[in-house]
Amino acid sequence: MEEKLREKLRAISPLKEEFFALAQARLDSLTKPLGSLGQLEEIARRYVAIVENPRPRIQRKIIFTFAADHGVTAEGVSAYPKEVTPQMVDNILGQGAGVNVLARHAGARVIVVDIGVDHDFSPRDGLTIRKVARGTANIARGPAMTRNQALQALLVGVEMADQAKEQNVDLVGTGDMGIGNTTPSSAILACLTQLPVSQVTHRGTGIDDSTLHHKIKVIEQAISLNRPDPQDPLDILSKIGGLEIAGIAGLIIGCAAQRIPVVVDGFISTAGAMIAVELNPLIKEYIFASHQSVEIGHRFMWEHIGQKPILNLALRLGEGTGSALAMSIIEAAVRVLNEMATFHEARVSEAKA
Amino acid sequence: MEEKLREKLRAISPLKEEFFALAQARLDSLTKPLGSLGQLEEIARRYVAIVENPRPRIQRKIIFTFAADHGVTAEGVSAYPKEVTPQMVDNILGQGAGVNVLARHAGARVIVVDIGVDHDFSPRDGLTIRKVARGTANIARGPAMTRNQALQALLVGVEMADQAKEQNVDLVGTGDMGIGNTTPSSAILACLTQLPVSQVTHRGTGIDDSTLHHKIKVIEQAISLNRPDPQDPLDILSKIGGLEIAGIAGLIIGCAAQRIPVVVDGFISTAGAMIAVELNPLIKEYIFASHQSVEIGHRFMWEHIGQKPILNLALRLGEGTGSALAMSIIEAAVRVLNEMATFHEARVSEAKA
Repeated sequence: MEEKLREKLRAISPLKEEFFALAQARLDSLTKPLGSLGQLEEIARRYVAIVENPRPRIQRKIIFTFAADHGVTAEGVSAYPKEVTPQMVDNILGQGAGVNVLARHAGARVIVVDIGVDHDFSPRDGLTIRKVARGTANIARGPAMTRNQALQALLVGVEMADQAKEQNVDLVGTGDMGIGNTTPSSAILACLTQLPVSQVTHRGTGIDDSTLHHKIKVIEQAISLNRPDPQDPLDILSKIGGLEIAGIAGLIIGCAAQRIPVVVDGFISTAGAMIAVELNPLIKEYIFASHQSVEIGHRFMWEHIGQKPILNLALRLGEGTGSALAMSIIEAAVRVLNEMATFHEARVSEAKA
Repeated sequence: MEEKLREKLRAISPLKEEFFALAQARLDSLTKPLGSLGQLEEIARRYVAIVENPRPRIQRKIIFTFAADHGVTAEGVSAYPKEVTPQMVDNILGQGAGVNVLARHAGARVIVVDIGVDHDFSPRDGLTIRKVARGTANIARGPAMTRNQALQALLVGVEMADQAKEQNVDLVGTGDMGIGNTTPSSAILACLTQLPVSQVTHRGTGIDDSTLHHKIKVIEQAISLNRPDPQDPLDILSKIGGLEIAGIAGLIIGCAAQRIPVVVDGFISTAGAMIAVELNPLIKEYIFASHQSVEIGHRFMWEHIGQKPILNLALRLGEGTGSALAMSIIEAAVRVLNEMATFHEARVSEAKA
């Protein structure tokens, strides 16, 4: 199983300079001052280089929302009870959640991947059941999962990327649902950056000061007890991670291997992106950072990965809501490449030398 | 004519607390942690309060791109020759400009208002001809226009808002086209804030260091020669302004009077918004700040007005491109109000007390 993952990781290649140059030449021929569309131009160039097509179109978009439970909720680290995970999965499948509204607005489909919810769902449209376990174990008492389970969850993500490729998806977004999941996300961040837990842990869905203080202690305990090896992303994932975080990491790895641009959502998704990028630093170039969340640790994640968030709207909902909003901006950037007139076509005078 | 404007300004009323409260109650009933959609929630609340409808829908959207020429281009303050103004108007009417692509993506119509281009356009679909003059006079040598012309241009903007109301437009965006127009915009900003010209003047479409230095001198000269009265927005507009800036200010005034939410584009549009807000500070609440541009003065404008930009994408194109991008975010925020399930509907447990 580890070999299958290594194979996917080896399939990822660096982006080619020639496609950046082709995109740049096209952008510079369009009727606007050079560089005047700022970050939209950066997005367009990188999209072109990922898909290796100088005039791409974004038509099919999917957001994969990975859902799982977390044993650490037993420690009282969240504002919501654990049963909200399956309730919210039902809500997403019923089209009533935030991610549904924003994905509809962006023209994207939402697929929920049950990768570890402690509940039995009936098969439904929009739901993919790939349960690796009925939630993780409590990281404050022992490892979240076995190394084998972490690998299995990573490969579920890879499988979703392969499915997206078969369906000619042009843009994939990540999303998460799992009560308690900011706790393992902060733990992963602290472990990979060696920043103090207190600097990277925040209120999640809205806990008060004393719960936040307790959450910090729980994360510190999880790290000191499990001793994840900062040099081994699979060790981190299995000891202090989460099943949805592993699924998201796998999705990102799979997208990079398949050359599908992937929009990464908020704090939990970006924890998954950190694991993916640790496994192969080339993956960084395949990622679009949807937004900067209000979780205090999120900016350290983006700094560590080295991508600049597209939006900064004080969101902290997850599910893939940030991915949905950013997809629309990425699509706008790509449409500029295809639909704007050139100076020549429009007979507009260029800038004075 | 001044009385007609005063009448419009008097028609603007403060937003009512009861509509903010209705929107807040709805947002808090939806299946998400309280406040977790951040700036989207602020946008939704204010949209509700402007239109005085707790469950609004955004269907019709129009961007009005006001086009005009500037006598100050004779001083060599721009990277582009003056003939680009009518060329770009043709490009917009031909659907090939940046604003067309981004407006199409947002589902918005673009209307060009020729309020002062030094060129005779034939009537065309999407073009409204309301020429007040064939461009302004050179502000480095005398006033841009008469007070009467400034009033006339303001009333053209008001007329566009009235038309939008008749057409049941749900969201209006501002835009500009006019070679040389960052020069009067910086002049207005310096005059209203008393900041040094060198701190609020930048590269516009992309001038080099020596041209920037020259542009600063030209603006300083325009202010010292014309002596606009910082207490009299009409005096500022007529002495150192521009016809499209006046049109945009009038559009914003008209939208506030008609209770139509108005998205303000970049540096030039925000100069217009500053004039509008000086004429009646209540207008601030009717404005959505589309984005933070790379023009160094832009952030001082938003600080002065007191609105927080929705996007920060290093744009500096104008035309209404930022308005188009932000419209999509505003629409997303309003859809959240209408389309998300409540905790009750979705049978999701609420946060622990």
